[in-house]
Amino acid sequence: MDQTIKIAIDAMGGDYAPDSVIEGASSFVSQYKDVELHFFGDSSRIEPLIDKYSNLRKFAIVHHTESFVSNVEKAGNALRSGRDSSMRLAINSVKEGLTDAVVSAGNTGALMAMSKFVFKTIANVSRPAIAAMIPKFGKDCVMLDLGANSECTSKNLLDFAKMGEVYVEAALDIENPRIGLLNIGAEQIKGNEVVKEADEIFRDTKFRGRYVGFVEGDVIIGDSVDVIVVDGFAGNISLKTAEGIAKLFGSWMKESFKKSFFRKLVAFFARNAIKELKYKADPDRRNGALFLGLKHICIKSHGGADAQAFSHALSSCRKLVKQDIISKLSKALESQVPELETAIETLA
Amino acid sequence: MDQTIKIAIDAMGGDYAPDSVIEGASSFVSQYKDVELHFFGDSSRIEPLIDKYSNLRKFAIVHHTESFVSNVEKAGNALRSGRDSSMRLAINSVKEGLTDAVVSAGNTGALMAMSKFVFKTIANVSRPAIAAMIPKFGKDCVMLDLGANSECTSKNLLDFAKMGEVYVEAALDIENPRIGLLNIGAEQIKGNEVVKEADEIFRDTKFRGRYVGFVEGDVIIGDSVDVIVVDGFAGNISLKTAEGIAKLFGSWMKESFKKSFFRKLVAFFARNAIKELKYKADPDRRNGALFLGLKHICIKSHGGADAQAFSHALSSCRKLVKQDIISKLSKALESQVPELETAIETLA
Repeated sequence: MDQTIKIAIDAMGGDYAPDSVIEGASSFVSQYKDVELHFFGDSSRIEPLIDKYSNLRKFAIVHHTESFVSNVEKAGNALRSGRDSSMRLAINSVKEGLTDAVVSAGNTGALMAMSKFVFKTIANVSRPAIAAMIPKFGKDCVMLDLGANSECTSKNLLDFAKMGEVYVEAALDIENPRIGLLNIGAEQIKGNEVVKEADEIFRDTKFRGRYVGFVEGDVIIGDSVDVIVVDGFAGNISLKTAEGIAKLFGSWMKESFKKSFFRKLVAFFARNAIKELKYKADPDRRNGALFLGLKHICIKSHGGADAQAFSHALSSCRKLVKQDIISKLSKALESQVPELETAIETLA
Repeated sequence: MDQTIKIAIDAMGGDYAPDSVIEGASSFVSQYKDVELHFFGDSSRIEPLIDKYSNLRKFAIVHHTESFVSNVEKAGNALRSGRDSSMRLAINSVKEGLTDAVVSAGNTGALMAMSKFVFKTIANVSRPAIAAMIPKFGKDCVMLDLGANSECTSKNLLDFAKMGEVYVEAALDIENPRIGLLNIGAEQIKGNEVVKEADEIFRDTKFRGRYVGFVEGDVIIGDSVDVIVVDGFAGNISLKTAEGIAKLFGSWMKESFKKSFFRKLVAFFARNAIKELKYKADPDRRNGALFLGLKHICIKSHGGADAQAFSHALSSCRKLVKQDIISKLSKALESQVPELETAIETLA
């Protein structure tokens, strides 16, 4: 028989918590029965919601907590004074073996600080990164780092590449992933010192898949890479720009199809096409960024996630646990040190 | 009477040169009559095209050149060995006073190297930047640097902000522009050292408009800034990502509306709405990036620009000449040095 996947949920994290969290969990268990959900938070608010979404009852265990981390709390503060918070206790439950992984839609900085402090990083990983799925032509791809490290070394970027490979294999069932290094202009003497150095190291590294070289920001219109490696500063800006453009288009489209009665009528007949388009672009389907490089699985849901989006974060968490991604990551990073040394020697 | 605007055109630059260049110029002169166009390139290829687009004849002066800069040529090489190229001679004509500004759809690196070498930078400008219009909710805004400098100091970013203000005022008639500094996360202790330092300097600087603080990549969905300042590495990646997402949406939309006869029919009735949407998103309308910080106007058209897009680059060039943007830039940068020193003293 299959194992039961135990997920710790910070029920108080996110703009619409705990409501959207509980509703999302209810939608999640209507799809998957091999799960046990541990909710951390204010039981007087959680219990009535579980009564409301009653299909959840037999999958749910509630752990009452007195406090939670607010969205404006600084990471350092949260780490020091949030020891009894729903976020921290959910994280602790993974470390203690009560659960397999943690999901939170709360404060990103606090979640990163706490999970890094409690879980620690995998051996040979210099810095954890935030990784997420982004749309491209064909299958999605994974992009990292999306904001955990605003300054990166070439060694950091190499770790990101190795971890990204394992992630995309486990999450999207892609074999021999193609890795691209994000840069300005594909011909190269361009770019900053870090990416130029990383490019040389990548060329001398044996990956599970293969390194395809520099790629530009518009790489997503083709189908040439599965893993996009970038420092957390440019990566975050690029991701947010993409989100912004997507929303801008959505609002333009709405505006345009509401201008007259005739256009509204047309929109009615175009509803299936529009729906399909929305589905393809839908960020909710891709909700759930992974903190990659920690010794346990920690998934960050978008703070503004609604129930459906939160349910997607849970599904992606379940899949990563089933795929035993942490063992795979450890193995992939294990073999790295001698290679890196060879590469650096070659460069020297 | 109004002055005649004299534009030097590198007729051999771009993927579809000289055809799209000449056709674009023809479309341009059908709108504006106060212009004189100096074409630099292979006259045996240019002349027949001017015969074809015959409305162009009375506005056109052809300067035959023996060579041109290819798209794959490295900037340094082009600078050394491209002295007789169409690009270089077009640039020279501005320096010599024969023309007021230059437009090329050719090799970006070569164009930047040559124009910087021939024109020199405006006093007090540390580094020129590439600036372009990008869509947002409401009026467009200007974003810079888009790739001229892959590593920037806070002083570079300050120059970009000051130049961006003048540009957006002249190009979009925006008064008291709002300046944002692109960063990850709007609350701040975040970001790399350069943007944190720049933020402090910006706060102590008297701008023509005003500094609104850090903004995130999704700033384009609101209407909170007119100038977005960013280093050339993150800026280029962000711009290319936006282009990629826009193209991805376009191709999804096409795919979706071609799936069945019924959908094609719907698309036919939705054609006005779709056209409107395309117009709003159209990068062609925004074609023509300005090399900001040089003593003369140099405009880079997209390499893949078609005639319509190239004509937009010419229109934007004409407007900048009429607005006398270079004098305005020099004046804005003149007053900068004492302020910057005060700001740096305050920091120390």
